[in-house]
Amino acid sequence: MSSNDSLARLADVIESRKPANGGDPDKSYVSRLLHKGPDAFLKKIGEEATEVVMAAKDVDHGADKSKLVYEVADLWFHSMVALAHYGLTPADVLTELERREGTSGIEEKALRKVVARTAEEGAP
Amino acid sequence: MSSNDSLARLADVIESRKPANGGDPDKSYVSRLLHKGPDAFLKKIGEEATEVVMAAKDVDHGADKSKLVYEVADLWFHSMVALAHYGLTPADVLTELERREGTSGIEEKALRKVVARTAEEGAP
Amino acid sequence: MSSNDSLARLADVIESRKPANGGDPDKSYVSRLLHKGPDAFLKKIGEEATEVVMAAKDVDHGADKSKLVYEVADLWFHSMVALAHYGLTPADVLTELERREGTSGIEEKALRKVVARTAEEGAP
Amino acid sequence: MSSNDSLARLADVIESRKPANGGDPDKSYVSRLLHKGPDAFLKKIGEEATEVVMAAKDVDHGADKSKLVYEVADLWFHSMVALAHYGLTPADVLTELERREGTSGIEEKALRKVVARTAEEGAP
Repeated sequence: MSSNDSLARLADVIESRKPANGGDPDKSYVSRLLHKGPDAFLKKIGEEATEVVMAAKDVDHGADKSKLVYEVADLWFHSMVALAHYGLTPADVLTELERREGTSGIEEKALRKVVARTAEEGAP
Repeated sequence: MSSNDSLARLADVIESRKPANGGDPDKSYVSRLLHKGPDAFLKKIGEEATEVVMAAKDVDHGADKSKLVYEVADLWFHSMVALAHYGLTPADVLTELERREGTSGIEEKALRKVVARTAEEGAP
Repeated sequence: MSSNDSLARLADVIESRKPANGGDPDKSYVSRLLHKGPDAFLKKIGEEATEVVMAAKDVDHGADKSKLVYEVADLWFHSMVALAHYGLTPADVLTELERREGTSGIEEKALRKVVARTAEEGAP
Repeated sequence: MSSNDSLARLADVIESRKPANGGDPDKSYVSRLLHKGPDAFLKKIGEEATEVVMAAKDVDHGADKSKLVYEVADLWFHSMVALAHYGLTPADVLTELERREGTSGIEEKALRKVVARTAEEGAP
């Protein structure tokens, strides 16, 4: 199966877990997160990002890489729960990533736009 | 193009930006991050996760959803830079997501494993 | 000098850096953050929290503890910029911490309230 | 009571909760965090930082400021658990904040050092 299918299929599973689509917060983790509302899954995004960082640091010091894969999967998974809540899909994210890459046919120029924007917004 | 292709293609671009593969830290944002080492891109993951949360909160209060898509793209993008540094690929993450989904054919059971693990590790 | 004084004095410095109080965004980092508005310093809180985590992980693996002190200072400092923006002070935070500790004279009971709340809100 | 006392006293309470000092992980939240080890409380720092950001965003949109005070207290509290684990105290953090402020008697110059360092490390 292509990963296209796998992301889209996971998005479908998440979609079916929405309480409005019959998902049961008592039986399904995803339904529960969606039922609780944004703060529940947004907090998880912050937490999972931290776990990615910790797992990466552990790999730096000799730990198995599988933990890092696991944590990135958790981070992307909870991102997808958030996307679903807001009526968005992984395809929207991939389109945005492709858009940057393709701009004027020069990937790096597009990527540098990220830099400029981040520097503008984020640098103190 | 399938999203599989797009993620794999973006991973290839990132791979080509590694200083060891000829990427130039003075010309390429990705090369620069990879040249600086883990702390540089791990910090970005924490920062981008925060930006996802802020963008989602803004959508809750009426902002355009495109900003949220943009920030999730940034988060996934920097996750992919980290994956590349550690010799991993988006395919590894997708395989992990599929594995959970497919376990014993019952997606939700697999997803609940995430709950149990998170509750075990994360709850105070 | 007591730490009370030092936190209060730092809060006074931050207060004086508000553009409304004459702070110059071109000359002062704090004025610049405050001038840019919440997203600028809130993003820093997410970033600095990540840096605390990275520094702690490095200490786990033998790095000097001074880096961790440095990063916690950065985290608290940017928290204080946020407090100032919202018309709050470190004293408000300390009062909250004392309140928990003092509830019914049994610190741990008060602390366990944090657990219960966090478990309620945060566990998946 | 001065906040110096309150931070120092809270640090003492946390210190007494260390399993090595007789703290019981089954009865005390802090003992439990410390018993579990760094990943447990470091993850909380990432999570609490995210909650600060969410609470601030809610204040931007009309919510009560007390929630923000509550979340900053949680963030500082878990920072102090980490400090305790590593044999550090809030006094160390306050000393660092004072050091910056006092450098050459010009606070803003000291603060700009934070900028320079952050820009160097953090900007992409």
